[in-house]
Amino acid sequence: MPERVNIKQKVLSENDKFATQIRKALKEHKIPCLNLVSSPGSGKTSLLEHTLKHFKDEIKIAIIVGDVQTENDAVRLSDSGGKIIRPIITGGACHLDAKMINKVFENIDINEIDLLIIENVGNLVCPSSYDLGEDMKVVLISTTEGDDKPSKYPAMFRRSSVMVINKIDLLGMSDFELSKVKENALNINGNLQIIDTSCRTKEGLEEWYKFLEQIIEDKKTILE
Amino acid sequence: MPERVNIKQKVLSENDKFATQIRKALKEHKIPCLNLVSSPGSGKTSLLEHTLKHFKDEIKIAIIVGDVQTENDAVRLSDSGGKIIRPIITGGACHLDAKMINKVFENIDINEIDLLIIENVGNLVCPSSYDLGEDMKVVLISTTEGDDKPSKYPAMFRRSSVMVINKIDLLGMSDFELSKVKENALNINGNLQIIDTSCRTKEGLEEWYKFLEQIIEDKKTILE
Repeated sequence: MPERVNIKQKVLSENDKFATQIRKALKEHKIPCLNLVSSPGSGKTSLLEHTLKHFKDEIKIAIIVGDVQTENDAVRLSDSGGKIIRPIITGGACHLDAKMINKVFENIDINEIDLLIIENVGNLVCPSSYDLGEDMKVVLISTTEGDDKPSKYPAMFRRSSVMVINKIDLLGMSDFELSKVKENALNINGNLQIIDTSCRTKEGLEEWYKFLEQIIEDKKTILE
Repeated sequence: MPERVNIKQKVLSENDKFATQIRKALKEHKIPCLNLVSSPGSGKTSLLEHTLKHFKDEIKIAIIVGDVQTENDAVRLSDSGGKIIRPIITGGACHLDAKMINKVFENIDINEIDLLIIENVGNLVCPSSYDLGEDMKVVLISTTEGDDKPSKYPAMFRRSSVMVINKIDLLGMSDFELSKVKENALNINGNLQIIDTSCRTKEGLEEWYKFLEQIIEDKKTILE
């Protein structure tokens, strides 16, 4: 079915056109951008709630938050002090694409922000194929999901730069082994930076905050 | 972009052709078929491991198990005594379709089995669109995923007949409330049958086994 391939290529190349446009604008203003991906319920929104509360006005964060349906996450993030929260309801689509991002990105005053985070739809498969103009993908996995997930969903872990292992307070409540998931993930992507966190006990969040400060610093000092 | 819609329709109608073929064969032999769907790591494979061990040879279960990559789940199910386990590696695709099912279904001797269970790819979005010839979809959700998931991924919960709430031994370890997830799900689909389970403590598994016995009984006695 050769038409199918062509259509897919056409959709992806249209996506890449918008992604390039977004990346260019972010580069000019030296704003780093993260694309946060995970299964449903791994804790993307919880991590961002903590992040907004921690940095308050110290670091100005814009968040574009994608959901298949409802604005629940956007409401949670606004309640946590988020001032620049842009919800996207995909209405059934299983991922965000760069065209959707571009539409809301145009309404963000890029001079006002230090960091852009995109919270993708909860899905470990489809979002891996779409470049949204980000500097890097950050994949979350929680300790209740099974330690073989990286090898079962390899594209996402291969295309991510950072893996956040969340819910480490629940270690020991299942067969999940921290060393196994790390070995499994590093087999797929030896360059993955790994951060262990618990949004419930706040363990490890300092390391996440330092990582964010570092990427903001790095982006400012990068040579053109 | 009208071609895109046409291709999608073409793919879905090709899918439905195969689904109809599978459904017809299952109906003739009075074999019920479940399509098990969930996020990655909700416990589909664990539930099936227990199910195989519980019924041993009493009920002959064939399982078609889909994964993006690896045969991990198929190996686990064989180790649990599963005799008719058919793995499908989608190689990147985010869902099973009826054409993939049909290919392995042809290799199952339908006279030998009492029940067919399809373990879909871990994904709460895409598998909702594909009819695999099943009698019903069974959606799993675990108590670590957040109690607003049904409203955030409504298509899956609307198209399912049964919701299994797994990992109830972890209730109290997060903000997840059992009453909330049930209310949330029933708002979307008032006909959902709900079964609470813990694969770890085995709580609730008896109800799941009874449900399976019932659908086998119902299928045998159904009038043509």
